[in-house]
Amino acid sequence: MPFITVKVLEGKTPEQKRELVQRMTAAVQESFDVDADKVFIFFEDLKPGDYGKQGELQSFKEEK
Amino acid sequence: MPFITVKVLEGKTPEQKRELVQRMTAAVQESFDVDADKVFIFFEDLKPGDYGKQGELQSFKEEK
Amino acid sequence: MPFITVKVLEGKTPEQKRELVQRMTAAVQESFDVDADKVFIFFEDLKPGDYGKQGELQSFKEEK
Amino acid sequence: MPFITVKVLEGKTPEQKRELVQRMTAAVQESFDVDADKVFIFFEDLKPGDYGKQGELQSFKEEK
Amino acid sequence: MPFITVKVLEGKTPEQKRELVQRMTAAVQESFDVDADKVFIFFEDLKPGDYGKQGELQSFKEEK
Amino acid sequence: MPFITVKVLEGKTPEQKRELVQRMTAAVQESFDVDADKVFIFFEDLKPGDYGKQGELQSFKEEK
Repeated sequence: MPFITVKVLEGKTPEQKRELVQRMTAAVQESFDVDADKVFIFFEDLKPGDYGKQGELQSFKEEK
Repeated sequence: MPFITVKVLEGKTPEQKRELVQRMTAAVQESFDVDADKVFIFFEDLKPGDYGKQGELQSFKEEK
Repeated sequence: MPFITVKVLEGKTPEQKRELVQRMTAAVQESFDVDADKVFIFFEDLKPGDYGKQGELQSFKEEK
Repeated sequence: MPFITVKVLEGKTPEQKRELVQRMTAAVQESFDVDADKVFIFFEDLKPGDYGKQGELQSFKEEK
Repeated sequence: MPFITVKVLEGKTPEQKRELVQRMTAAVQESFDVDADKVFIFFEDLKPGDYGKQGELQSFKEEK
Repeated sequence: MPFITVKVLEGKTPEQKRELVQRMTAAVQESFDVDADKVFIFFEDLKPGDYGKQGELQSFKEEK
C-alpha cells in the first residue's frame, strides 16, 4: 500500500524509471508515513499509436 | 478530461484506431461539452492468450 | 469487446452519460465493425480531491 | 460481469494462464452465482523493468 | 504478485466478496505456485448508472 | 504525460494527498524532464471491504 501505476509514452530509459521509483517511494513514505516495502509501482508504456489527444493519435502527429 | 481507455483484441489497424479517436473525441465534445484538447484516449491491445471468457482463453478457442 | 473506461470529474448527469454511451457505441461499431452488444462501457467518477494536475489537487484549486 | 484483471510478472505459461482462467471462473460462479459466459478475465504481463517495490525496480534486483 | 482487480455491479455482500477472495487466492496458489501473502485482490463496485452495454446504461435498462 | 494512479486504503487526509501530489509531480519533473502541467495524478480510495490479501478481506482482519 499504496499501489501506483505510471502510464507514460515509451522511450524512458531503465535508469530514468529506476530513479523515479526511488523518488516516488520516498515521496509516499514522507506523505503517507508508510514503509518502503509497502509501496508498489507499475509502469505501463504507451506506444504513439495507442495514445490519442485532441482527436488525433500521437503516431500521426509525429509523421507530420 | 475525460481520460478514456479502450481495451481491445489486438489486430486493429492504425487507421481504425485513428478513426475511433476522431469519432470518440467528437462524441465526448457533444455529450460532455468539453474542448477536444481535454480528451485523452489510450488503447490497450489484448493478446488472445491474455483474454479469457466462459472459462477458456481466447488463444485456445482459436486453436479448435 | 472492446471494453471502454471513461474517467471523468464527477458531476455529469445520467442523461449525459447515457448519451455518451450511445454515441461511443455507435463510434466503435463503425470504426471496429463490431456488434453493439460487444461494446462495454464503464464510467469512473473522479472527486476534485482525487484529481491532481500541475502539482495541485483540483479541490484546492477550486477553493482559490 | 464481473471483469477481472490479473497483473503478474511475465513468464507464466499459456497452460498456467489457462488453468487459472478455469479455476477463477469456477470460483466466481460459486461465490457470485453467475454464468460462466458472464466472466471476463484479462491478463497483464509485467516486465521486471516495469515493476518496482521497496524503492527498486525488479530488473535491478535480479542483476544483483 | 499477482495483483487482481474484480470489477462487478454493486450489491455483492461482504460474505460473497470474502468467499471469492478465499477461492481466488487458492486458485492462484495452485496455478501460479505462489504464497497466499503474494496475492492482492481489489474490488471495484460498479453503479448501474456507470455501466453501459449494447448502447444503453444499465440504470435505464432497469427502469424499463 | 505521464498519467499516475495511486490506489490506497481510504483514510488519507486532503492535506496528505495534496502533499503527495506536490512531491510526486516534482519527482516526475526531475526524472522524466517534463513540465508540471503534463503530470496528471488520480487517487483511488480502497475500502477495507474491497481489499484482500493473504486470502482474507481487510475488513474482516480489522474485526479480529
